[in-house]
Amino acid sequence: MELEKQLDYLFNPGSVALIGASNNLAKWGFHILSLLIAKDGRHIYPVNRNGNEIQGLKAYQSVSQVPGPVDLAVITVPFIEVPAAMEDCARKGVKVAVVISGGFAETGGEGAGIQREVVEIARRAGIRFVGPNCMGHFDTSADFFTVPYLPPVSKGPLALIAQSGNTSQSIVYLACELGLGFSKYVSSGNEADLHFEDYMEYLARDDETKIILGYIEGLKEGRRFFKLARELTRKKPVVIMKAGRTEAGARAARSHTAALAGSDVVCEAALKQSGVIRVEEVNELIDVALVLLGQPLPRGRRVGVLSAGGGAAVIAADALMRQHLELPQLSPGTIDKLNSLLPSRWSHVNPVETGGDPFSYACLWALMEDENVDAAFVIGGGGVTGSYAKWVSLPASVSNQIEQYLEEAEVGELNDVDKSMESMKKYQKPIIFANMGVPTPRKGKVYEKLQKEYIIPFLTPERAAKALSHLVQYSEYLRA
Amino acid sequence: MELEKQLDYLFNPGSVALIGASNNLAKWGFHILSLLIAKDGRHIYPVNRNGNEIQGLKAYQSVSQVPGPVDLAVITVPFIEVPAAMEDCARKGVKVAVVISGGFAETGGEGAGIQREVVEIARRAGIRFVGPNCMGHFDTSADFFTVPYLPPVSKGPLALIAQSGNTSQSIVYLACELGLGFSKYVSSGNEADLHFEDYMEYLARDDETKIILGYIEGLKEGRRFFKLARELTRKKPVVIMKAGRTEAGARAARSHTAALAGSDVVCEAALKQSGVIRVEEVNELIDVALVLLGQPLPRGRRVGVLSAGGGAAVIAADALMRQHLELPQLSPGTIDKLNSLLPSRWSHVNPVETGGDPFSYACLWALMEDENVDAAFVIGGGGVTGSYAKWVSLPASVSNQIEQYLEEAEVGELNDVDKSMESMKKYQKPIIFANMGVPTPRKGKVYEKLQKEYIIPFLTPERAAKALSHLVQYSEYLRA
Repeated sequence: MELEKQLDYLFNPGSVALIGASNNLAKWGFHILSLLIAKDGRHIYPVNRNGNEIQGLKAYQSVSQVPGPVDLAVITVPFIEVPAAMEDCARKGVKVAVVISGGFAETGGEGAGIQREVVEIARRAGIRFVGPNCMGHFDTSADFFTVPYLPPVSKGPLALIAQSGNTSQSIVYLACELGLGFSKYVSSGNEADLHFEDYMEYLARDDETKIILGYIEGLKEGRRFFKLARELTRKKPVVIMKAGRTEAGARAARSHTAALAGSDVVCEAALKQSGVIRVEEVNELIDVALVLLGQPLPRGRRVGVLSAGGGAAVIAADALMRQHLELPQLSPGTIDKLNSLLPSRWSHVNPVETGGDPFSYACLWALMEDENVDAAFVIGGGGVTGSYAKWVSLPASVSNQIEQYLEEAEVGELNDVDKSMESMKKYQKPIIFANMGVPTPRKGKVYEKLQKEYIIPFLTPERAAKALSHLVQYSEYLRA
Repeated sequence: MELEKQLDYLFNPGSVALIGASNNLAKWGFHILSLLIAKDGRHIYPVNRNGNEIQGLKAYQSVSQVPGPVDLAVITVPFIEVPAAMEDCARKGVKVAVVISGGFAETGGEGAGIQREVVEIARRAGIRFVGPNCMGHFDTSADFFTVPYLPPVSKGPLALIAQSGNTSQSIVYLACELGLGFSKYVSSGNEADLHFEDYMEYLARDDETKIILGYIEGLKEGRRFFKLARELTRKKPVVIMKAGRTEAGARAARSHTAALAGSDVVCEAALKQSGVIRVEEVNELIDVALVLLGQPLPRGRRVGVLSAGGGAAVIAADALMRQHLELPQLSPGTIDKLNSLLPSRWSHVNPVETGGDPFSYACLWALMEDENVDAAFVIGGGGVTGSYAKWVSLPASVSNQIEQYLEEAEVGELNDVDKSMESMKKYQKPIIFANMGVPTPRKGKVYEKLQKEYIIPFLTPERAAKALSHLVQYSEYLRA
């Protein structure tokens, strides 16, 4: 059977055997089974050497005793028992497997030999498998999940391949918190059989996947990875966090997924030449996904900054400069427009600083129209009027006034956000919103409207500047 | 009157005149007045050239018409009217003032001359003043607030002096979100009269202030600052964010608070030599405050890492190494202890990685006892068992089991946290908790217990490593 077909079965099997199914809540085999049962529509077969009944289902002592066909086997038994389980899968004619169990090549000991044994058994039988030492996988379209340690995941444009279960878990949590959805996910573990590159090739052809996110400690097929990446990044962005940058990190990676990483400098250069966006932190994967989803590709690195406060303007300027972005002079026409919109004490240069007043969105539109500006960066501003009204007791007349003022302001801002989105589409320039801790807006209708467009205010100007810088560099790569 | 006495009046006045009091919700003079009225116990006098009644109080056309004495005048009228307002304060014998209004030296134009005029008027009358171009101030002990754009602030050990209103607002928001409280706060604005150094000297003697946080764009009295800092940092930590690091940032700072910053490299060196902890981002101010409040000062930079996942171990190692911390070899005794606590597949080196299983706290205690380790760094782990139970429908028997399991786990963990705190006190070694997005624990009883001790899990290993590194450097400074 060809690989693509096998991976189709992996992500959307008709029947699943769980080898290591358990009634014991401390075992993975308990939670995976609960989850498989809860998600209807597939044949689920608990397998456990004791047989009997598990969570209300008849349990089989081995996969070969299962009456119907088994597309996918999920294996959670201790590593020492995995070769026998794989033998049994071979006898049964299982198509594809996920080996959750750890204790293999990553330990450097006895497990390494057992891992080789498992690979040989699977190869002879034509079974391809995920792992070992992994956390499972999911497909939101097929509504199929083997990983029970996640928040509710919605359908969406992101795919994730990760050489670490707990890191992937963090990535999914961070994305879900912002309302971002996933197409497919796989925790690839030690990659004894299926490699990062196999999943990548498969996701390249997956129409539901718009962006591929990856967490890497070491590549099994570096040459193939970079060849694939060069083709892929012209069509879909690939965003990679490669860990083990430092000596101690690389050493830890060896004892994790048995990864043998080469020089980080060489890796960095190769990623860059392939158009891969490399990030340094887990948060940054999601930050970059956001700007890729929500923003047009900028035509240059000249940023117009709009700030409702002087400190924020200084901090934004520092953050943008440190990411090698530019703060251009504004054109005389823009200065004229801003003169008519702002009190005379405004900064009169880029960053445009209002002199402490909340800005009107018309200032943003003026920046967007400026031919010297490739992207707008909006920081701070608004949203805290009357914040004290929530914690001191005011006369009803005052608190009603504040409430009405805020409601009217919200209606106005919703309208302004629409116009800003039009301006973004018309000029094909990104608009990056950032704040520094003041939650503006972190909820309410304005936030919801922005969130639908993947335009979520960044929590720090530094993160916002970094994300914009990645977008600029990717755009430069595609245009080169 | 000596300065200290005047600053006592600033932070705890018996009577306050608000010059620019307003019934118009779009004006600062509206919100400051509402807030002053809501906080009982002082004489509040609205002043507005139209007189009449404002928010139910009789308004005076000038300060000199106020019947009783006026300790503090808060001025929010347009900059062009400030000299006349200050003249009036002089006539009245006002002791101290806060000039909120902007449009002065920061504009580089006409306002610079007016600022000089205001200073001269105040000097002649012996009035010291905050600002102009600032956001006000507060004192939680006196329950006195002139800044209405903040969340509820509780009493606590932090003081903040900031040369930016909106940045200070962010800092206060971030601290409040984590339950950190403040003693005093001042938004120092252009510092035409009172300087950063004046507040610093005052806070040095303030018993309620345990840590001084500062946001600086440029110092008026650099020499005095560093002299004060050298004395102060031996007793109370001083944590500073100095912005305007880049050329564009410094330019923006000039048009903000009229700050003239020297070379950032020189400044960096001077801050270091004075024992000041310099941070790069707004978040980092609070991160450092947390470790200063919650952790003992480490005796060295050797960090023992405990991770419940391989990816987290690699990322933590990278983060610590990049902050120039060390990952020492563990002593044989520690390895023996960990062998008895963990499955055989554990990493057997530092970072201690459990092989994917949640760790027991006993592993942490083993690290704390190791004479090769100066601080423990705990990442990931636990807390997500049964997360799927919240979003798929399970049989009651299963979800009840999960609930009970989690409740029992919580009881156990509360107990383990107590023992960990004992271990921290006994060995005088910091314990830093970090996670990468999975909210463990971000709420619930374990979080509350940790929060009370100022031990709040950092949201990224990079932030955690940076905070620990600052603590290590401060400790080295004090011991040198």
